[in-house]
Amino acid sequence: MQHLRKITVVGLGLLGGSVGLAVSQMLSGVKTAGFSHRPSTRSKARRLKVVDEVFDDIKASVKDADLVILATPICNFEDTFRQIADALKPGCIVTDVGSTKLMPHHWAAKCLPKNVHYVGSHPITGSEQRGVEFCRDDLFYKALCILTSVKNTDKRSLRIVNQFWSALGCFVKVMSPAQHDRIFADVSHVPHITAAALVNASDTEEMKFAGKGFMDSSRIASGPANIWADVLMTNKDNISRGIDRLTAQLTKIKKAIRSGNRKKIEKLLDAAREKRSTLVKYKMNRKELI
Amino acid sequence: MQHLRKITVVGLGLLGGSVGLAVSQMLSGVKTAGFSHRPSTRSKARRLKVVDEVFDDIKASVKDADLVILATPICNFEDTFRQIADALKPGCIVTDVGSTKLMPHHWAAKCLPKNVHYVGSHPITGSEQRGVEFCRDDLFYKALCILTSVKNTDKRSLRIVNQFWSALGCFVKVMSPAQHDRIFADVSHVPHITAAALVNASDTEEMKFAGKGFMDSSRIASGPANIWADVLMTNKDNISRGIDRLTAQLTKIKKAIRSGNRKKIEKLLDAAREKRSTLVKYKMNRKELI
Repeated sequence: MQHLRKITVVGLGLLGGSVGLAVSQMLSGVKTAGFSHRPSTRSKARRLKVVDEVFDDIKASVKDADLVILATPICNFEDTFRQIADALKPGCIVTDVGSTKLMPHHWAAKCLPKNVHYVGSHPITGSEQRGVEFCRDDLFYKALCILTSVKNTDKRSLRIVNQFWSALGCFVKVMSPAQHDRIFADVSHVPHITAAALVNASDTEEMKFAGKGFMDSSRIASGPANIWADVLMTNKDNISRGIDRLTAQLTKIKKAIRSGNRKKIEKLLDAAREKRSTLVKYKMNRKELI
Repeated sequence: MQHLRKITVVGLGLLGGSVGLAVSQMLSGVKTAGFSHRPSTRSKARRLKVVDEVFDDIKASVKDADLVILATPICNFEDTFRQIADALKPGCIVTDVGSTKLMPHHWAAKCLPKNVHYVGSHPITGSEQRGVEFCRDDLFYKALCILTSVKNTDKRSLRIVNQFWSALGCFVKVMSPAQHDRIFADVSHVPHITAAALVNASDTEEMKFAGKGFMDSSRIASGPANIWADVLMTNKDNISRGIDRLTAQLTKIKKAIRSGNRKKIEKLLDAAREKRSTLVKYKMNRKELI
């Protein structure tokens, strides 16, 4: 990656730390810097050597960086853009790993100087674990990574960010932030809310009888609440519409059950089974489920 | 198991076939017989030797059996009880592996002769796979198995059925069919409906962007529709109430998102995370998640 000599990661949690490790592993010769506002995270990051240098000062961390990657909760992005704006070198590329993209694009356009180029990134990976101690250098290997661009996104920067994630092992796909946020409301944010709602709707004692099905379908509810609250806060309209569509489907099945319409129940369950089986085949063919 | 010399399994799918295999493995000296109404299943079951003898005739299959286990979709139980009633020997114990228990108890009381003893069983195991070809002799190992009894359930038969599932490696817990159906509406039937609703509410093309979270939370939607339609048909009231509680939780989160109440969103997500983390610890301690 001839264009990238120094990469700075702002936020050293599971994703940020893993970016640092993966860069050391896959991009030899590239210097990595990292910043965290938490002293305890900084000392863990130093001990685990997730980046070459850990900074206490955010401006110092991004100095001379060719690529800056924000890996904090999304609602910190606006502040972070403002804090680093003056310290970025001309031509620097800024991206992030946030799960929504419309608001980050909006904040970047508002807060970053004109000679700095923003591209949105969303690597579809992670786990319900949080913290630098769960970092892995292979977290991005064979993961899908969505890049988002708008009309005036710098084409060269988009190409470099694409090369960057590809070098970490990602499959890259480019779309608009609007399309991204609509799609991920349905396939990620609403399922997350649903998992939380399922758990909240269940009795603590009765849940002890849960089998593997419940454990799997509620797994994502164990994700960090503060990170997810930011995701939900920055994709309100799409999520609202997604919850409405889900509720309509639940009501449809409930009506079929209440009226004892076995044919209708079986038809609805079979439609879901067929649709998911097609999806599983697609994922298997792309080796995404291995 | 001195009281059981011959066990008959009616229905040779994933669960029925696995009961056969597990009995051969764990209860030496016990003879196993099996019935399936499908010729193709019978020939597969013979080839795979899931029971000692596969019968074409249901009455012949239960002759001299000390324990008969129904492992067909639940809505066949009433007919099956009627078909086998005359062929059962006095003192025979009848049980099943169905996921709801109120209706099976009701049908057993109505259709089985007085000198035959019914006990409900619900081993919490299985997979989204179906068919005798997915049978495993360890399917019940470390699984929870709920037994259901009512006021006039024969105590000796309950004890024998308890010993039987324990011998296959299950943790056994006894409760009333009413309690069972209320609990499993919440921890199994509503989650199943939710997984199907999530898939049905999503766009086929957009689903291709789904990550591990969506795949896990929708996994149970791949279960066999005919078996699940029977489960839902036989637990209408509990499921209706469960869907209402889930919808109320979804609406609560949606309202917090729409009004931009970050504190409330985080509180709801955190409550779910805490509750699930307590559950995971409980399951880990019991080695149920291994």
